[in-house]
Amino acid sequence: MRSANLRLSLPKRILDATPPRRIITGPRFTPVVQALPSIVPFVAPDEIERSRGQKFSVRLGANELTFGPSPRAVEAMQAAAATAWMYGDPKSHNLRQALADHHGVQPLNITVGEGIDGILCNLTHLLIGPGDKLVTTKGTYPTLNYFVAGKGGLLQTVPYGPDDRQDLPALLAKAWEVDAKVLYVVNPDNPSGSWHAEGKIESLIEGLPPGCLLLLDEAYHELGVDFDANAKVAVDDLRVLRLRTFSKAYGLAGARIGYALGAPEIIAAFDKIRNHFAISRVGQAGALAALLDQAYLHEVRERVRHARETLGSIAAQHGMRCLPSATNFVTMDCGKDGAFARLVLSELTERNVFVRMPGVPPLDRCIRVSCSSDEDLRIFSEALPGALKDAERKLGSK
Amino acid sequence: MRSANLRLSLPKRILDATPPRRIITGPRFTPVVQALPSIVPFVAPDEIERSRGQKFSVRLGANELTFGPSPRAVEAMQAAAATAWMYGDPKSHNLRQALADHHGVQPLNITVGEGIDGILCNLTHLLIGPGDKLVTTKGTYPTLNYFVAGKGGLLQTVPYGPDDRQDLPALLAKAWEVDAKVLYVVNPDNPSGSWHAEGKIESLIEGLPPGCLLLLDEAYHELGVDFDANAKVAVDDLRVLRLRTFSKAYGLAGARIGYALGAPEIIAAFDKIRNHFAISRVGQAGALAALLDQAYLHEVRERVRHARETLGSIAAQHGMRCLPSATNFVTMDCGKDGAFARLVLSELTERNVFVRMPGVPPLDRCIRVSCSSDEDLRIFSEALPGALKDAERKLGSK
Repeated sequence: MRSANLRLSLPKRILDATPPRRIITGPRFTPVVQALPSIVPFVAPDEIERSRGQKFSVRLGANELTFGPSPRAVEAMQAAAATAWMYGDPKSHNLRQALADHHGVQPLNITVGEGIDGILCNLTHLLIGPGDKLVTTKGTYPTLNYFVAGKGGLLQTVPYGPDDRQDLPALLAKAWEVDAKVLYVVNPDNPSGSWHAEGKIESLIEGLPPGCLLLLDEAYHELGVDFDANAKVAVDDLRVLRLRTFSKAYGLAGARIGYALGAPEIIAAFDKIRNHFAISRVGQAGALAALLDQAYLHEVRERVRHARETLGSIAAQHGMRCLPSATNFVTMDCGKDGAFARLVLSELTERNVFVRMPGVPPLDRCIRVSCSSDEDLRIFSEALPGALKDAERKLGSK
Repeated sequence: MRSANLRLSLPKRILDATPPRRIITGPRFTPVVQALPSIVPFVAPDEIERSRGQKFSVRLGANELTFGPSPRAVEAMQAAAATAWMYGDPKSHNLRQALADHHGVQPLNITVGEGIDGILCNLTHLLIGPGDKLVTTKGTYPTLNYFVAGKGGLLQTVPYGPDDRQDLPALLAKAWEVDAKVLYVVNPDNPSGSWHAEGKIESLIEGLPPGCLLLLDEAYHELGVDFDANAKVAVDDLRVLRLRTFSKAYGLAGARIGYALGAPEIIAAFDKIRNHFAISRVGQAGALAALLDQAYLHEVRERVRHARETLGSIAAQHGMRCLPSATNFVTMDCGKDGAFARLVLSELTERNVFVRMPGVPPLDRCIRVSCSSDEDLRIFSEALPGALKDAERKLGSK
């Protein structure tokens, strides 16, 4: 660039006080950002496919609803595509009104975000500053941990309980011990598939330390055993925020619509900091249509239940135990340690079957397989014995 | 809720140290968030329509591309809708590769966000902590100001120059004076429509104080007079980050795809804090198809140019002057002060014509009208004389 230097137009007092030439320096990131690691654990299936130079035969690792969303949702998105020159409504008014009717609450009890991840990001902005503490289970859904680190917060973890479920008494004790600003509970849980009944959650809320928010991630709620379509949601409690999504049971992971249900005082705070125009118009239309097609949701629940049973049978054929699941995935205990499960996963990947596994003991003895069609599960079932056998062989040769 | 209190399961040392009953308290927001105002200036056209109980006849206030996106983009989104059960690729790999080819850069020079707003949000997270300073023009695109406040940063402004353009020497002097971490320049500018030639921007970069990032918001770039489809973008400079979007010239405001072009060191920092799964799969498909249809973009440029001329003629018929525009809107000087322009705007709204106006002097003497079809502009043209007349009358009676 050979251009005149606008610096010469500066007032004399600035020119005199600063040297005319200098080394080019980059932006000054905040101290919190400077301390963040460069590597993030977000290896998407698309990325694995690119690095292997091959498409997966089945995509059973991201807990997506392979059955697809309601055909009405697809139609609504296709119609909305032609109107995509307009910004989406920053208030997501129609969707929030429909959600309010559905849950028996008011629109002011609901904020919509770019998936639950978007709400986790905003929630940490609201509550977590450098040194603030958040309590979670070691090995549960990790994206919140990433956002907490991004705000300079401190993660305090407790291990899974002996029954592979989140250990509510231990979580509560830790929250008291560290004066946590947030207690994060995933229910039903990912990656274990386990759940706690609503009564246990109510009891947890009653025991919370003062000023600690229970952040209840209910991404898989509609697929749970306790799900009741008519159950209203209590939203008058300042101690709890519930997160729901259209990415799982409603099959719209690619539309990026999650929402939070809570007291107006908490919901209103999101409007102070969120990206108001972040939600796509097409996604809003799809989510609304999906919500209104509850018959399809019930069909999905049946298909997921069937797939869970099928996966249970497949596992049993190979002497593997499945953890009880209230989600659209099944966590299969490979019967050995994490090293073995990682080999099984690697062998399945070699066979173009995309599944994932929990990253942390004790659950890392398992692989996690998403529910899908009989045909998809047949492909998984055919790949599994060879994968187990080769994993055994490689483990032995180590 | 009549449930057992899980608190009774707490270790004795915690039970003994804390009172058994207490008042329910809400979450503990960070000090920065507590200080934020509750009211945000995001009144969308949808919201105005709801509050008036009537749809607008024409939507000329949000600088959307009323001509719509490329038909190929619509087709691509419609096809992608059926695959919306899959998460979008968190790396936006295909889109970033195509953008890299288009701009003659590498994918590692590009990060994709939820519109430019999403990138503004993330950029403030990276650079602005409590007390950090950002320099901008008073009255230019305000969303960045909102995100700066959300991080506790301090805004330092300079007024528009005497020619209604951003005053580059004054901005530079202010950046030196306050040791700004970021200097924000919108080019072409919103809401004035004015622009600075690339040479001026290069000169500004050469004059920047050390460690100050020039954040160059080029949302309207493809509609500018200096636009050259073949112009490559320099991305090796640590002092500048350029923002582009599919919301304006590409007509995909509702798809929420913006991107930043810059040095790899800056681009990589976004991956430390951004919501990796925020971009919708449908939007990614639409943006890619829109980018590949450059013929349509050139058609759009011609239609926008025609509409700018038409709006100039309409204004001239009423003795109004239009500011020169390098965007898809025209800023019309109503010839009096802000009070009069606000009356004109209000009268247009009463006539179901949606336009906006700059909020800050000296530009608040103007209204801002988006380019659109001849038919839309005819409706505007028919509403304008009555609006001007009634505004004059109301101003006189004040």
